[in-house]
Amino acid sequence: MTSILIIGGGGMVGQKLAHALAAQPLADAKDTVTLFDLGFPENGAPANARVSGNVTEAAQVASLIAKRPDVIFHLASIVSGEAETDFDLGWSVNASAFWTFLENVRAEHTASGGTYRPRVVFTSSIAVFGAPFPDKIDDTFLSAPQTSYGAQKAVCELMLSDFSRKGFLDGLSIRLPTICVRPGKPNKAASGFFSGIIREPLNGKEAILPVSTDVRHWHASPAAASGFLRHAALIDLEKVGTRRALNLPGVSCTVEEQIEALRDIAGNDVVSLIKPEPDEAIAKIVSGWPRDFAPERAIALGFSAESNFHDIIKTYIAQDLPKS
Amino acid sequence: MTSILIIGGGGMVGQKLAHALAAQPLADAKDTVTLFDLGFPENGAPANARVSGNVTEAAQVASLIAKRPDVIFHLASIVSGEAETDFDLGWSVNASAFWTFLENVRAEHTASGGTYRPRVVFTSSIAVFGAPFPDKIDDTFLSAPQTSYGAQKAVCELMLSDFSRKGFLDGLSIRLPTICVRPGKPNKAASGFFSGIIREPLNGKEAILPVSTDVRHWHASPAAASGFLRHAALIDLEKVGTRRALNLPGVSCTVEEQIEALRDIAGNDVVSLIKPEPDEAIAKIVSGWPRDFAPERAIALGFSAESNFHDIIKTYIAQDLPKS
Repeated sequence: MTSILIIGGGGMVGQKLAHALAAQPLADAKDTVTLFDLGFPENGAPANARVSGNVTEAAQVASLIAKRPDVIFHLASIVSGEAETDFDLGWSVNASAFWTFLENVRAEHTASGGTYRPRVVFTSSIAVFGAPFPDKIDDTFLSAPQTSYGAQKAVCELMLSDFSRKGFLDGLSIRLPTICVRPGKPNKAASGFFSGIIREPLNGKEAILPVSTDVRHWHASPAAASGFLRHAALIDLEKVGTRRALNLPGVSCTVEEQIEALRDIAGNDVVSLIKPEPDEAIAKIVSGWPRDFAPERAIALGFSAESNFHDIIKTYIAQDLPKS
Repeated sequence: MTSILIIGGGGMVGQKLAHALAAQPLADAKDTVTLFDLGFPENGAPANARVSGNVTEAAQVASLIAKRPDVIFHLASIVSGEAETDFDLGWSVNASAFWTFLENVRAEHTASGGTYRPRVVFTSSIAVFGAPFPDKIDDTFLSAPQTSYGAQKAVCELMLSDFSRKGFLDGLSIRLPTICVRPGKPNKAASGFFSGIIREPLNGKEAILPVSTDVRHWHASPAAASGFLRHAALIDLEKVGTRRALNLPGVSCTVEEQIEALRDIAGNDVVSLIKPEPDEAIAKIVSGWPRDFAPERAIALGFSAESNFHDIIKTYIAQDLPKS
């Protein structure tokens, strides 16, 4: 059996992961799953325990780590738009709290005489990259973020890597593509519209498109994200080596291609619900984001995602579109 | 006039810089220079003020920033070998204290109504890079450090860049090559032998060589370092753009080439004072360090260094070799 802690387990990806772990355990049916988050959705994913709290409250995090979970998924974070408007909150939640978390794990490692050394999977982001980019970003391209969110994720990657190198834990940072189509309500992420322009029309609602249709971006579905996390928890880290931050596979397409995929699958009436409404602030953030990747290491290590945007829409319809 | 604060002003590079600023001010003869460090050498470089203290003491740093220096050189750091053996001390001095420093600057920026926005030049290091490397590291190669020191420097770069992007200060991180030939006594830096094998024999003393002679590395003199710092303080940051961490010019050579340059300049008897004494711990750290660079951005921006190792030795003899 494996004891699993999901920090940020109440969020969309955390819930997807908890559902997936209930359907297919990491080790066996005796696995235990603890979710930690500010709150949890009603009728949410199954779990052995749900703990409400804030990652910035060190004592709460320490008490969770004191139970010495075998695998810790760390997904908790202020989203990009909010980290950009609230500098203090972003650095506090997305960087300082992660440091405190790592120090808690190290304290348990030390208290155990070095035997406790959990797998820690951290959800980083392609926001660690900043323009100018090559057409495809390869596995040795620099992190030069142009948002506070990206800077915070890059800082956490470096800290996790150093704690791993020292043997306090076994960490891996996975740089999630933009998750699309996000179910549920819009959040404050600057990337929210990439999902909104698909999800809202499929639900019969208007969606705002704040950027030009020639914007190219990098996507993977929530199901793919859940698969990345599982794979990162089980992968042989000897094969990963010392570079513990991975670019992941995804789908590179333009907003135009997203819209045409939606048209193919759902028709013109659905597409007509997309309303262009340029927003310079969002356009500026998004212009500093990557468009395409050559994630050779992750592919060689067995990570996989959808191969086209049609499949991403179909995943949403199959798994998340509310049945009317 | 320009008011200048050198944090780490008592160290070797800080003293070189203070001497250089006395000989050639940044603005004019009314420039003021304040040095901050744990302590200062006797008969050291001239300065308007010398303040003894620790960068981990936030109140002390705050009182220096409260004077609103126009230019701040931040050179203070635990060296690589010590950061590797004392994990807590390294992260405290090299990363946490830098965050506190940045927050102090931001507080003054805010208190000034946004008018106070100093130039901050941070001495980062080529230790932000970790093997495997290309033959020459270009300006878009990833930071994947394999030492705590390198991770701490990379984290500071990201923080400084984000504070710069937000307009709280005007920051630039310069990734110093290994500084060689360091005058004075050996320190705990794992890179210390690169200087030791030149300096000690030139002073008639034996020097330990802990690595193989085929080790290739990247060097610049203390005088070049001082020149980098001055150039970074004066450069037009519009030309630098949003990527605020620069690889600098230097000399790539093997230990064998270093030794042969010493033989050319000082003869066989001097070279015979170099004693090979392999040290696995040092060899392991150094094996993760870069060997050569193509620092095109820095060269285009006007940074310059020596072009061969003979010149580096001659600089030491001219500027730092004690007159017997």
